[in-house]
Amino acid sequence: MTGLTLVWGPESAEGWLDSYLSAAAVLDLLRTYEGPSYDAVVMAGFGEHGREGVRELVDVPVVDITEAAAHLACLLGRRYGVVTTLERTCGQIEDSLELAGVGRNCAAVIGTGLGVLDLSDGERTEAAFLAAAERAREAGAEVLVLGCAGMTGLQRTVGEKLGLPVVDGVGAAVKLAESLVGLGLTTSRVGSYAKPRAKRRSWGVGGP
Amino acid sequence: MTGLTLVWGPESAEGWLDSYLSAAAVLDLLRTYEGPSYDAVVMAGFGEHGREGVRELVDVPVVDITEAAAHLACLLGRRYGVVTTLERTCGQIEDSLELAGVGRNCAAVIGTGLGVLDLSDGERTEAAFLAAAERAREAGAEVLVLGCAGMTGLQRTVGEKLGLPVVDGVGAAVKLAESLVGLGLTTSRVGSYAKPRAKRRSWGVGGP
Amino acid sequence: MTGLTLVWGPESAEGWLDSYLSAAAVLDLLRTYEGPSYDAVVMAGFGEHGREGVRELVDVPVVDITEAAAHLACLLGRRYGVVTTLERTCGQIEDSLELAGVGRNCAAVIGTGLGVLDLSDGERTEAAFLAAAERAREAGAEVLVLGCAGMTGLQRTVGEKLGLPVVDGVGAAVKLAESLVGLGLTTSRVGSYAKPRAKRRSWGVGGP
Amino acid sequence: MTGLTLVWGPESAEGWLDSYLSAAAVLDLLRTYEGPSYDAVVMAGFGEHGREGVRELVDVPVVDITEAAAHLACLLGRRYGVVTTLERTCGQIEDSLELAGVGRNCAAVIGTGLGVLDLSDGERTEAAFLAAAERAREAGAEVLVLGCAGMTGLQRTVGEKLGLPVVDGVGAAVKLAESLVGLGLTTSRVGSYAKPRAKRRSWGVGGP
Amino acid sequence: MTGLTLVWGPESAEGWLDSYLSAAAVLDLLRTYEGPSYDAVVMAGFGEHGREGVRELVDVPVVDITEAAAHLACLLGRRYGVVTTLERTCGQIEDSLELAGVGRNCAAVIGTGLGVLDLSDGERTEAAFLAAAERAREAGAEVLVLGCAGMTGLQRTVGEKLGLPVVDGVGAAVKLAESLVGLGLTTSRVGSYAKPRAKRRSWGVGGP
Amino acid sequence: MTGLTLVWGPESAEGWLDSYLSAAAVLDLLRTYEGPSYDAVVMAGFGEHGREGVRELVDVPVVDITEAAAHLACLLGRRYGVVTTLERTCGQIEDSLELAGVGRNCAAVIGTGLGVLDLSDGERTEAAFLAAAERAREAGAEVLVLGCAGMTGLQRTVGEKLGLPVVDGVGAAVKLAESLVGLGLTTSRVGSYAKPRAKRRSWGVGGP
Repeated sequence: MTGLTLVWGPESAEGWLDSYLSAAAVLDLLRTYEGPSYDAVVMAGFGEHGREGVRELVDVPVVDITEAAAHLACLLGRRYGVVTTLERTCGQIEDSLELAGVGRNCAAVIGTGLGVLDLSDGERTEAAFLAAAERAREAGAEVLVLGCAGMTGLQRTVGEKLGLPVVDGVGAAVKLAESLVGLGLTTSRVGSYAKPRAKRRSWGVGGP
Repeated sequence: MTGLTLVWGPESAEGWLDSYLSAAAVLDLLRTYEGPSYDAVVMAGFGEHGREGVRELVDVPVVDITEAAAHLACLLGRRYGVVTTLERTCGQIEDSLELAGVGRNCAAVIGTGLGVLDLSDGERTEAAFLAAAERAREAGAEVLVLGCAGMTGLQRTVGEKLGLPVVDGVGAAVKLAESLVGLGLTTSRVGSYAKPRAKRRSWGVGGP
Repeated sequence: MTGLTLVWGPESAEGWLDSYLSAAAVLDLLRTYEGPSYDAVVMAGFGEHGREGVRELVDVPVVDITEAAAHLACLLGRRYGVVTTLERTCGQIEDSLELAGVGRNCAAVIGTGLGVLDLSDGERTEAAFLAAAERAREAGAEVLVLGCAGMTGLQRTVGEKLGLPVVDGVGAAVKLAESLVGLGLTTSRVGSYAKPRAKRRSWGVGGP
Repeated sequence: MTGLTLVWGPESAEGWLDSYLSAAAVLDLLRTYEGPSYDAVVMAGFGEHGREGVRELVDVPVVDITEAAAHLACLLGRRYGVVTTLERTCGQIEDSLELAGVGRNCAAVIGTGLGVLDLSDGERTEAAFLAAAERAREAGAEVLVLGCAGMTGLQRTVGEKLGLPVVDGVGAAVKLAESLVGLGLTTSRVGSYAKPRAKRRSWGVGGP
Repeated sequence: MTGLTLVWGPESAEGWLDSYLSAAAVLDLLRTYEGPSYDAVVMAGFGEHGREGVRELVDVPVVDITEAAAHLACLLGRRYGVVTTLERTCGQIEDSLELAGVGRNCAAVIGTGLGVLDLSDGERTEAAFLAAAERAREAGAEVLVLGCAGMTGLQRTVGEKLGLPVVDGVGAAVKLAESLVGLGLTTSRVGSYAKPRAKRRSWGVGGP
Repeated sequence: MTGLTLVWGPESAEGWLDSYLSAAAVLDLLRTYEGPSYDAVVMAGFGEHGREGVRELVDVPVVDITEAAAHLACLLGRRYGVVTTLERTCGQIEDSLELAGVGRNCAAVIGTGLGVLDLSDGERTEAAFLAAAERAREAGAEVLVLGCAGMTGLQRTVGEKLGLPVVDGVGAAVKLAESLVGLGLTTSRVGSYAKPRAKRRSWGVGGP
């Protein structure tokens, strides 16, 4: 498994502007990628845009960590909740789950008030996560989802403290991607995710 | 992977009566099971009842082929369709998908008119599948799901003929169960799927 | 009106395992029933499974107390609420209402924390009911439903104390069954609830 | 049972203007009614407005034939359909079912193209009903509803020809009203259907 | 712009009875109107019935303040809330938004407890509005709507105090009506809003 | 009114990849814009992404032609339909309408099979539009929306031929933007559309 880092885009994605900018940067990265061949793409921006475009672009399965975490969470309890970073991203996550087809059993998306870059403070993050998790529980969540790739690793500790399964989207997406590859399945070319039409496109002028 | 066969129940499940009878028989089989330990349970009755009860009963992950196929199908196209056996089971499948939280992106559930036991005639099954698949396509399906465990194996041939990914629920469920086990995740005990309360229960009087 | 008692099954139904076990036992009871003929079947397990299977099996109208209470409650206020026993059964009731087609106007399903067998303590039950009813009111309920057949009889007292109509599912189901019989209506055989197909079935091996 | 005829309003209701005019006329009729006391009100305009206002006004149960037919139809099959008069009224009926909380299991509302006053031609009505019923069947209806009080009486003949239960709203509403009266239930005064506030109101100037 | 006052009807509309009475009175007013010609109709009863009937009756665009405020609010934030008069009208407003097709992004409809005629006390109204607005905010509203024509004028003050855009339905409806007129658009005659059929109708007997 | 042309991006937008690329290019254009000040932004890519990001970025109202057309269409009939270019864009448009909060009354989104650049052939476009419109009508549309900015101008001719109001999104969006400006309303900064956080971002490396 190889992690790719965006060549351009925002330093972290918090809000729609960042998300759309990242989406274009991810697409640009993949279309110009010249490394070893790969079997699947995992998109690691929780609640962020772009997965449908990547599905058009590449010939291998594409799994976004938002939908991946939700798919597994649905198997573990009747309702799940998402605990994420800033309140402003909650709506974006709700939209992403809805369009992925897994919004029905989402009881709540709750912000911790922490920005992506604040997550490096482990103690503060854990405390904020536990407080937000409590609110998700009251809203009916029986399973929780880590609502940011930067929270990966937290699932074990908070899971034990909460007495609940906690799903990390990155781990979930890797497993789902492996599952699709193992079953010989990839994105349908019929309808929505046909290959992009041949045409002129330019990808930014490079300003800061 | 070990396949267990029901000790009692219907010889095949087609309709609600059969489905509820099977659900009780599956629960009875698992509660009295004394074989080697296992890591997960895969339930192989497409559109059939029981998964929530099994989640209460056992301590390992439980994945039903109906939901499993739908979860993977959601990753492969914007809308999926299910092709199943008798028309009478379509409603049951729709209900099962809805409650599993993955009904939103289901474009159609279409019957082939074949009973479970008719599926042994491969040629007839394939022809009926292709005809039903056409109707699912017209309703917007970009991915198809085999709507009966007895169709397993058909995915490759019909997938090629249709030019669409076709998901087999059994394969999907095994992969999802392995994914959950690999991630150390199991059913939440908070809320819906708490352990069954200790009480007197009897499991049938054994009549035909 | 004759009350039938299950020959096998759980001593009370609390959760999905119990519910599926009961569903099979109800079906077995009815298929082997040899008493006087009857005009309709009322199913008295609130939120429990089985009604569709019974509709397939018998030729007379079948009314489940969950749906019955909700149908009448919809006529009495813009939103209704259900007050039931353990929290763990709330989800099952929500699913049952949704599939019966009457979930839209349900404002809340609230548990009292009492098990079915605790309901024999009338004073405690009433106090717990009133507290839960308050929460249903805050969620928008204008009418309440007794969420367990074991609560039957409570409707008058709590109704007066709350100043709200309170619907007992058993009474509601009997009236609806009589209504269908009076109008000469019974279950449609077209589509979902066709007669069960002739096949081999066995109904349990009788273990405790 | 006493039938009341509107003192003013349209000679038949076909469309929203007629429906709102009828709603006011029904309210005026009931507020000025001075006949013998009554136990319940049945409103016989299929898909027409007014039921919530009548619930505010009178102290007895109020049942509208639209919702009544749908409530009983839900007990007879997994999906029901409505066959009505002019196409222009279909939307109004859909809205009425949705707000009554029973829209979920409605597969289709189909017009026959006949106006209310055309229904006196029995043969033509039956033929048009059967053709529309076929379309409802294709949309998934397993039970049918007569979508106009003027169709009452048709249920037996068309039911036999179609091999489906057919629900007449007038009969259904009478049974449901009797059920509520028998159970001692009436409209909730909490929230939506509180008594109308005391204030000056005038009820038309009587022009043609 | 000319304001028309009802010749008959309730002195203020609070609840369904008043709303249906107003709907008929509005229709009567417009059908007998003999003043200068007009380009559009704005209906100024928030949450009240009648708009579909007026669309059938007149040949110019018809905009109701409820839907108008919601349409503009959707453009200003991801979720909006409505602050209205009495709690009893909240349900009616929810229904009106739902049928207008703009209910999805409504986070809450909250009552202030004030009757329409209480709104003349500006200070009390503002205080009640701010308290209710707080609850709408907690439910997720990012934009607010004045839920009564009698609140017009309040949008600026409360908007500044709350730091949120506040939409007045009257202003919104006028702008939307002008927009439709400017674009040469008017109500479709196909389907739902065809012209009322020619028939005998009488419009009230004029009693108090 | 000034039209801005993207400095980079796809030559036309057909599918998700193009849409995400355009969204980033629109954001880049606006953040680097140094022309005269403006009162509102109209986004002219039908069904395309980006509107929420632009709402974060600028301080004036932002209206996207997709939502704008739907908002006005809701005022003109009970259900509307969209006729667009390639089938592959239909899903994207459905998603866009759903998230804008106006998906409920959309009866259908139908493709003409024409690419954006094919629209220069007026006769072919009109014929394809009329054929697709017929299908939208059958699905219940009473009003139509031009599903591409490149169709602007077609509304009058096809409207007359179809006997239906046809809404052009560009005209609609301009009117709605003017309405918001005239009412002194702009995007809420509370919750979803707060200003983008200050951080390092780079906007492409400029490759073809």
